Amino acid sequence: METVGSREAQDTARTEAFSDGVFAFAITLLVLNLRDPSTSGVSLSQGLINEWQSFFALVTSFITILVMWLNHHNMFSHIDRVDRRLMLRNGILLLFVVLTPFTTSIVAGHMTLPDAGTAAVVYSGNFLFIAIAWNVLWRYCAKGRRLLREDVTDAEARTITRQYLVAPLGSVVALAISSISGLASVTVVLAIAAFYAITGSHGD
Amino acid sequence: METVGSREAQDTARTEAFSDGVFAFAITLLVLNLRDPSTSGVSLSQGLINEWQSFFALVTSFITILVMWLNHHNMFSHIDRVDRRLMLRNGILLLFVVLTPFTTSIVAGHMTLPDAGTAAVVYSGNFLFIAIAWNVLWRYCAKGRRLLREDVTDAEARTITRQYLVAPLGSVVALAISSISGLASVTVVLAIAAFYAITGSHGD
Amino acid sequence: METVGSREAQDTARTEAFSDGVFAFAITLLVLNLRDPSTSGVSLSQGLINEWQSFFALVTSFITILVMWLNHHNMFSHIDRVDRRLMLRNGILLLFVVLTPFTTSIVAGHMTLPDAGTAAVVYSGNFLFIAIAWNVLWRYCAKGRRLLREDVTDAEARTITRQYLVAPLGSVVALAISSISGLASVTVVLAIAAFYAITGSHGD
Amino acid sequence: METVGSREAQDTARTEAFSDGVFAFAITLLVLNLRDPSTSGVSLSQGLINEWQSFFALVTSFITILVMWLNHHNMFSHIDRVDRRLMLRNGILLLFVVLTPFTTSIVAGHMTLPDAGTAAVVYSGNFLFIAIAWNVLWRYCAKGRRLLREDVTDAEARTITRQYLVAPLGSVVALAISSISGLASVTVVLAIAAFYAITGSHGD
Repeated sequence: METVGSREAQDTARTEAFSDGVFAFAITLLVLNLRDPSTSGVSLSQGLINEWQSFFALVTSFITILVMWLNHHNMFSHIDRVDRRLMLRNGILLLFVVLTPFTTSIVAGHMTLPDAGTAAVVYSGNFLFIAIAWNVLWRYCAKGRRLLREDVTDAEARTITRQYLVAPLGSVVALAISSISGLASVTVVLAIAAFYAITGSHGD
Repeated sequence: METVGSREAQDTARTEAFSDGVFAFAITLLVLNLRDPSTSGVSLSQGLINEWQSFFALVTSFITILVMWLNHHNMFSHIDRVDRRLMLRNGILLLFVVLTPFTTSIVAGHMTLPDAGTAAVVYSGNFLFIAIAWNVLWRYCAKGRRLLREDVTDAEARTITRQYLVAPLGSVVALAISSISGLASVTVVLAIAAFYAITGSHGD
Repeated sequence: METVGSREAQDTARTEAFSDGVFAFAITLLVLNLRDPSTSGVSLSQGLINEWQSFFALVTSFITILVMWLNHHNMFSHIDRVDRRLMLRNGILLLFVVLTPFTTSIVAGHMTLPDAGTAAVVYSGNFLFIAIAWNVLWRYCAKGRRLLREDVTDAEARTITRQYLVAPLGSVVALAISSISGLASVTVVLAIAAFYAITGSHGD
Repeated sequence: METVGSREAQDTARTEAFSDGVFAFAITLLVLNLRDPSTSGVSLSQGLINEWQSFFALVTSFITILVMWLNHHNMFSHIDRVDRRLMLRNGILLLFVVLTPFTTSIVAGHMTLPDAGTAAVVYSGNFLFIAIAWNVLWRYCAKGRRLLREDVTDAEARTITRQYLVAPLGSVVALAISSISGLASVTVVLAIAAFYAITGSHGD
């Protein structure tokens, strides 16, 4: 009754929906890193101001996950169908996305402490793993046009491949400057997200 | 195989689904602000009564997010398609929605304390940002009928634009009276939600 | 392009999806009530056995929410379309569903303590509110066949109305015996869920 | 207006979506088991290294739930329609899936302590229950081809029945060696997931 094509379209839709769920949950769980500062013995307003690094880290992670969601969505619009290998690679990507609320809490909790460098290594390192998993996922789809839609030209595919390299390269920079300044490292992560927020618009 | 129209419809559906996920998740996370009061050395029933402000804040936030979800849904029924700029603006809106469980815990934890005013500033301030992000989102869609559906008349669009102004104006009121009474400020937020619960019904 | 019918079908689908999201999140958040007992100075196995009431409360709440999800699903299969009033009533129902992880933690934490009765009042009281909200929702749809599908007979609608009365009546019983035995009260809640798990099967 | 077939397809879709929600949410909640180790009096980097068993347990649970999601998806592609009994059996399966973040935190918190064996019993025992619930679910569908799609051959169904036996048998092994080595027990759970990640690919 159901055609092969419809089942394949359903597979793609379900993979997108599962990924969307994980993106949406991870982005919302970020809020659990914010705490009522009133127990620390300062006034509420002073306590919230002292927590500025938690807000900065939350906003950076939120925007990064949001832009990832947008681009994930965009990537899937170039894919004709999903297979199990793609689903597994996508799963590895989601594993590192799920870690983001944890690495965000680490960097937020240590940004003003002596070990800010270590915290920024954890934070930017996680985004480096995300960037690598992302490129592995895309190259799996694009190699020999394995899973690409017919209407995606080779030139388009090459442009995307090039653009996706900015994330791992940028993350390596963020990782490298972690020991100098945790704050600068997080700012580089935010800049990478801004890059994709702008360049990713080719499809619209 | 897939037409441009169908991909666009899919984009809209996926943006709605992602937003719904964040709304549903944020609304459910509110429950984590409620705590077993028994460790505070009073009886369970007395402890729960003492926590009345947590319940009041939870119900206010729940109803506000619920009505926002209803209206978000309604707004999207006027939109023909989504583009990347809309998705980014929608993302900013969701950022402030995600903060709601945190600001709710702040106002609930301080409503009966001397710094209730500061807490109410945080709470109503977050809803002010939500209201601004909401208006930015709608005006982006409505400007020059950029993303509106053909069957939405100019008069309808103007009515919606006017109605959406109640939220930022009301939130400014809530913010202004924060320093006088935290409880009154939260009540204004609840009144705004009630306004939209009633007026938003034009579409049905 | 889109017909009125298709938009209405979409509204119904989105309301169901939002409700499903809240049911799924609330059911999963129940797990956060379980704690590693090893800090309480007993062995891990003894600690887990001492936590039996947490598991019992979790299973009871899980099964109740699961059966509610099934019946919610079933209720919506009798509904032709949703309107805003239905969405608001549905939202009130979800508010009490969202409270379930909290009331479950209360009853789990106090079942073996002197104030087990108070805890059971909170727990069964929440389910009573759920049952009332549920009946209000259904009666709104069924009154004068307001939102019913054409193929639902009046006899079917009356049967459902009668069946839905078991939940509020049973919850009143659970509430009434709370002061005698918290455990018995939770068992009645579980029995109500079992009733609906069985009788609800008429549709299949 | 709506045909019976379309309602049935919708039922199946909604059951899959609810299950996907629980899978996606449970997989994301795993991150809450990770804690900032800096309060334990060691440096951040040392603290994170000391937490290796938390990461190992998280990765094992993540991959297991991910592969379960993939196979759940695959199982449903063989099912023609869902009925209430299937939904209840599916619910029992989800109950044990929801417990995974808890059992993961238990095994992560005790892997290097004397009671690692007890913790591994809890962890592998939960996966044994999952495996049993899974087999019960599948056998309910496959018995006398009750809910199977017409295009699924008897040989295919038998192959799946055989493959699904690996999980309970493997979990019994994981359970049996728990008392010898908690780490070995978790590794067996990971090996079972790897088995399904590979063999499950028949459908693609």
